[in-house]
Amino acid sequence: MTKIAVLGYGTVGSGVAKVLDENGAQVADSAGDKVEIKYILDLRDFPGDKHESQVVHDIDVILNDPEVEVICETMGGIEPAFTFEKNALMKGKSVCTSNKELVAAHGPELVELAKKNNASYLFEASVGGGIPVLRSMNDSIRHEKVDSITGILNGTTNYILTKMDQEGADFDSVLKVAQDKGYAERNPEADIEGHDACRKTAILASIMSGQFVKYEDIYTEGITKITGEDFEYAKSLKMAIKLLGSCKRENGKFFAMVAPFLIPFDNSLATVNGVFNAIDVHGNMLGDVMYYGKGAGKEATASAVVADVIDIVKHKGRHIDWNLRNVPAEVASKDDDVRCFFVRTDAGNADKAKALFDGLKEVKADKVSGEFAFITKEITEKDFEAKLSELTGVKGYIRML
Amino acid sequence: MTKIAVLGYGTVGSGVAKVLDENGAQVADSAGDKVEIKYILDLRDFPGDKHESQVVHDIDVILNDPEVEVICETMGGIEPAFTFEKNALMKGKSVCTSNKELVAAHGPELVELAKKNNASYLFEASVGGGIPVLRSMNDSIRHEKVDSITGILNGTTNYILTKMDQEGADFDSVLKVAQDKGYAERNPEADIEGHDACRKTAILASIMSGQFVKYEDIYTEGITKITGEDFEYAKSLKMAIKLLGSCKRENGKFFAMVAPFLIPFDNSLATVNGVFNAIDVHGNMLGDVMYYGKGAGKEATASAVVADVIDIVKHKGRHIDWNLRNVPAEVASKDDDVRCFFVRTDAGNADKAKALFDGLKEVKADKVSGEFAFITKEITEKDFEAKLSELTGVKGYIRML
Repeated sequence: MTKIAVLGYGTVGSGVAKVLDENGAQVADSAGDKVEIKYILDLRDFPGDKHESQVVHDIDVILNDPEVEVICETMGGIEPAFTFEKNALMKGKSVCTSNKELVAAHGPELVELAKKNNASYLFEASVGGGIPVLRSMNDSIRHEKVDSITGILNGTTNYILTKMDQEGADFDSVLKVAQDKGYAERNPEADIEGHDACRKTAILASIMSGQFVKYEDIYTEGITKITGEDFEYAKSLKMAIKLLGSCKRENGKFFAMVAPFLIPFDNSLATVNGVFNAIDVHGNMLGDVMYYGKGAGKEATASAVVADVIDIVKHKGRHIDWNLRNVPAEVASKDDDVRCFFVRTDAGNADKAKALFDGLKEVKADKVSGEFAFITKEITEKDFEAKLSELTGVKGYIRML
Repeated sequence: MTKIAVLGYGTVGSGVAKVLDENGAQVADSAGDKVEIKYILDLRDFPGDKHESQVVHDIDVILNDPEVEVICETMGGIEPAFTFEKNALMKGKSVCTSNKELVAAHGPELVELAKKNNASYLFEASVGGGIPVLRSMNDSIRHEKVDSITGILNGTTNYILTKMDQEGADFDSVLKVAQDKGYAERNPEADIEGHDACRKTAILASIMSGQFVKYEDIYTEGITKITGEDFEYAKSLKMAIKLLGSCKRENGKFFAMVAPFLIPFDNSLATVNGVFNAIDVHGNMLGDVMYYGKGAGKEATASAVVADVIDIVKHKGRHIDWNLRNVPAEVASKDDDVRCFFVRTDAGNADKAKALFDGLKEVKADKVSGEFAFITKEITEKDFEAKLSELTGVKGYIRML
């Protein structure tokens, strides 16, 4: 019997209890041992809840109980989660978490601390909800030289973009529907401005590079500038518009970025719709491997937390190693990143655009008029910005995968 | 240093050597130990090959060398691979293999033998080539109650169906091109009749059920009856036609089948094109998780074999457990399996069809005339067959997902 504690009895925390309740036999089979919740830490009480009697309000009850071997931190946010996790690890208790903010901010340090204390620090649920991508990267494909990771990492923005595409609706009205349905928060900035995807990209980039990629170093753009007209052009290009978190090693440099991208219909990421997430990893031997599933949701995310608990139980007394050192990764400026761009300007700027962007390819969309839209040849971000600043009447631009 | 032997220096076997040569440092990081090929078993010699000096022709050299801890069996076929694997396991050497025929025929028995000898038996590369789906099922999602697995498991047939769809070409001409390009064998029955997908379905079904699902018990249909007209109807239905291997637990019964299916465009499997494979696993907590990647190819498949070697090195001296007992699984007859069917008949049979299939829905396709095509309501396979046998002028039918 392995006893665990769950910190935070919100959506994910109560999901962890549900997974253990409903799939207890399967968990025991997988872990080789029964797993039982001894404590649930929350400020609130939960009268009438099945797990009412396990609720405690004092973290020290958990930290000082030597029977508790694994901590599931499902509170979210930096503090007090960070302090709680550190204290647990220093007592040799292993920690698993769904807390992407904390993992993005302090993951490598916590992995290091776990190692020092012969404990483990796992965080499968912090990226892609229930999708088992991180363990797979650390186990099944860790021997690959990964040269790029490209993911749809935020369900809210993917839901909004999918609805805009399928229904021809504009951003604001789709956001409102998403909020009414509970797919978007009342305060939606973290999602629509790309901050959530940025945290997840930082975690993936750190695992890919083996070093600490700070989320502050990742250029991040949200989806608020995407319009219905953009989708008209996308259709004529046989492309989808998706918010991508990406990192890649190219010409000896390591790039990372979160931004909306035009991606061809025949790229599997183009067909990932609604609240689903998908992560494509490209290895030197494997080629592309893609993982797809529910990027959020109580049970799916909790299932990933429980997978970490199981891994820890299977490796009791041993540190589960990550190829992730707590040293800062060098993230290249996006200036040198090379790609094609899709640009829309007022119709009157066609000649100026043609002069500035040598070899551009005009793009037309059935339902859009009075504009000159085009695709640039491959160009660095820096050169693109410089040329674009000379062009007037720019209505918007989108990067192309 | 862990010394291994590779049995069979063909496509996959030489790929294993290539992965170890090119990604040796990454393999050592992942395994926590260097991995070196000590022997390669092949009937042939390979003068000039980098690994020439490791080639031996006698399996006993390998089996009797206590330094060899891991055997990669990449020969294919039942014998002599089966005997070689058994003898290796009985000597306590762990075995990993890409040999789907052998795993489908004797996998559970070999897992059992590995356990008895405190060795491991892994076979990631036997399903989905490089796609890390089996380890994920055994590690990350083993605590899920999986109620269905649905996969595109054969790259050759998926390539043919994709080309038929995209180019409007007929089966025979696409097959010929596929053979010329090396995507299909000169003797293509194993692929186009579904036998290869059947083996892989049997392996997935065994892992899902925890018991031995014999491939002989899986109803299997190939793609040779699919026509250009079928794709015209599929387009009008906004569906794709894919050869699926599937197993599911429904109404207390366990069903498994390989057959072409119509699947809606918004199902992610519909957009898996060309030689790619994808496997969707549905768990009770997770919902759908899909794994996508190269289902074949030298390096991708070899990378999966090397992932198994790494797993074995990480678990030296310990048996890696599967939830897979060597007892026969009860596979239900397809008779009771319920679904909708798409049927095409001569135009003159419309009234008869309407009388037989109560509530059918007519389907029209732009470029097809002189036919009456329809979709049935949900019906058991048995009832469908009975009714269909009363209908004359049937041009074909396809199951619907």
